[in-house]
Amino acid sequence: MNKIVREKNPLVHCITNYVTVNDVANAILAVGGSPIMADDIDEVADIVSIANAVVVNIGTLNERTINSMEKAVVAANLRNIPVVFDPVGAGVSQLRNKTVDRFLRTVHFTAIRGNISEMAYCAGETAKTRGVDANENDNDINAADIANAVAEKYSCIAIITGEKDVVSDGEHLVFIKNGVVMMKKVTGTGCMLSGILGAYLGACEDKFSAAVNAVTSMGIAGEMAAEENSAAGIGRFHIGIIDALSQIDDAIISARGKVTL
Amino acid sequence: MNKIVREKNPLVHCITNYVTVNDVANAILAVGGSPIMADDIDEVADIVSIANAVVVNIGTLNERTINSMEKAVVAANLRNIPVVFDPVGAGVSQLRNKTVDRFLRTVHFTAIRGNISEMAYCAGETAKTRGVDANENDNDINAADIANAVAEKYSCIAIITGEKDVVSDGEHLVFIKNGVVMMKKVTGTGCMLSGILGAYLGACEDKFSAAVNAVTSMGIAGEMAAEENSAAGIGRFHIGIIDALSQIDDAIISARGKVTL
Amino acid sequence: MNKIVREKNPLVHCITNYVTVNDVANAILAVGGSPIMADDIDEVADIVSIANAVVVNIGTLNERTINSMEKAVVAANLRNIPVVFDPVGAGVSQLRNKTVDRFLRTVHFTAIRGNISEMAYCAGETAKTRGVDANENDNDINAADIANAVAEKYSCIAIITGEKDVVSDGEHLVFIKNGVVMMKKVTGTGCMLSGILGAYLGACEDKFSAAVNAVTSMGIAGEMAAEENSAAGIGRFHIGIIDALSQIDDAIISARGKVTL
Repeated sequence: MNKIVREKNPLVHCITNYVTVNDVANAILAVGGSPIMADDIDEVADIVSIANAVVVNIGTLNERTINSMEKAVVAANLRNIPVVFDPVGAGVSQLRNKTVDRFLRTVHFTAIRGNISEMAYCAGETAKTRGVDANENDNDINAADIANAVAEKYSCIAIITGEKDVVSDGEHLVFIKNGVVMMKKVTGTGCMLSGILGAYLGACEDKFSAAVNAVTSMGIAGEMAAEENSAAGIGRFHIGIIDALSQIDDAIISARGKVTL
Repeated sequence: MNKIVREKNPLVHCITNYVTVNDVANAILAVGGSPIMADDIDEVADIVSIANAVVVNIGTLNERTINSMEKAVVAANLRNIPVVFDPVGAGVSQLRNKTVDRFLRTVHFTAIRGNISEMAYCAGETAKTRGVDANENDNDINAADIANAVAEKYSCIAIITGEKDVVSDGEHLVFIKNGVVMMKKVTGTGCMLSGILGAYLGACEDKFSAAVNAVTSMGIAGEMAAEENSAAGIGRFHIGIIDALSQIDDAIISARGKVTL
Repeated sequence: MNKIVREKNPLVHCITNYVTVNDVANAILAVGGSPIMADDIDEVADIVSIANAVVVNIGTLNERTINSMEKAVVAANLRNIPVVFDPVGAGVSQLRNKTVDRFLRTVHFTAIRGNISEMAYCAGETAKTRGVDANENDNDINAADIANAVAEKYSCIAIITGEKDVVSDGEHLVFIKNGVVMMKKVTGTGCMLSGILGAYLGACEDKFSAAVNAVTSMGIAGEMAAEENSAAGIGRFHIGIIDALSQIDDAIISARGKVTL
């Protein structure tokens, strides 16, 4: 489906954190989309009106941007374009929890992507969260159960990333075993994936397959970067992920993807 | 003129977007300037008072920073130091349009740089704009006419970047054919150029030649990065642009520049 | 002590500028910590409650984040966890000066790190400051005296970075001669060091040695990056610094560190 993304060149409106925003923009460009970042409440509706998808990431949320995010998603829901939600740090602070609760109550997301702690929070489970680079192995909660719970509760595609990624839409559930542990040593691999999900969902009709392709691409990009750069350190590994995303096509996804039911 | 920039080491005060701000700072350093980013309304006048140039970029504008930008440019106009304006996304939202209109009415810019859609908006033409990475080929509006119109209307140097760059001050007009298409696949090449323009205009007396040198440098940097990195992907290409900017000197600009009347 | 950082994996809460925030996060990850960036006043206390250290950097301060910073440091002081202060641009604007004065009066910092101009401002000396990439050689003020003055006045570890770094806690003072001049050509090497200081202070008991190790690591990382990348330009040099930070261990610090009394 990467061919479709590159052909349609979807415009992806991101309201995302300032830590990884450059990587998110370049990741979207790398897979064939066009990013546009805009977070003022007085312009988000205009930007949504020309966008093919919206990505909302609460990594560095504040009162101003929370309101802009909600307005953008409401506008996207009215236009019926896909919206990706990245609930960064859900469970870590009351502000994040209140914001996640509010969004989940008032708007609809096409896809929600987080690590297992964040997704457990969305599912309503009690899970301890330790910052934005949580070690999912510390949890013995079953990722598949959480993904299914989130998918069913919010009628969305739920994506949990970790050593093994899980994608569920409540009816179908797949595991994806691509990726390398080193990806945790670079900030923003999750944020980049959420951006890529916006590009895939904005371009492709079959949303579940689009999500699976996006998740698989990110994992393969990590593997390709590690093969070339793992000895060199995480600076080159980081850049190598963007390199790989720009090189990946459907043939590579087919050949290297480790998707299982 | 790069020698002059490296010798004078101009301090360039940038109020720019948070997507590409790191690249803008490193690009300014790479060509020989010193960047300083400051956007609080209570300090912009102090920063302008020690700066050699100001760069204003509305990529992620908001109510707070719009007011800071205006105050900074007013202060720069009073001090008679050069100001570069990058009207990112002009035409895309009412907020951007109102902001561009307001700035063009109330302050003076030494140079305005944008893609053809953004510059057509400034010129008053009706042009469809499709996000911040617009494909200039979609437009059949004549870039030279738009550049001349902006230059004359606002008594500034107008710079339109695209496959062929145009620089006009209303009296002189040149085309620059450096650069590679791959530059569109990295976010921020336009923003970096606006930063570099600040460094060149802040250091050099002959503003038109300074602008032409800055634009040519950015195009050559793209070519040099592509020669070394194009097979590797856009991550290394991105880093290669900064590498090249730090290596370029006047001899390289003379040898590789494709500037025509 | 890097082994301790990698084992304890301290969570470092940063309220830092948007120019270099990505590098700060990746530098913290590279040395073995976990970064979390959060700056809304309604959540900083929650984030501090799970953090092992706090880093406050006023590079792009504004009214909103100044208040968040103060609240975060007050919370950190109550929890008795280490706090690093990076007074970027102290001396450059009234807003920065007032903010530095206010923080130094109302809260306690475990460590304060800046260039000689910024630290001279903190010490109360009159020193001319020229932007955030000041050339410390322009000053003939004695770095050791300033470091001692800051350390004694605020009961903290004072770190002045420049061609020769100085670390003082008022009782002990060391010079560190690692690093390369090229580090001034990349924005954020100071900010990255402040982030790394947070990781070291958050993990290690002996705070003075932890600070010395952090400063030495950053200098060595610059040297390693220059050895591999200096011919290539500052783009690869920048990435090389992150690479080196992820490779450095206690053996490298022992072998290459140039720490003298």
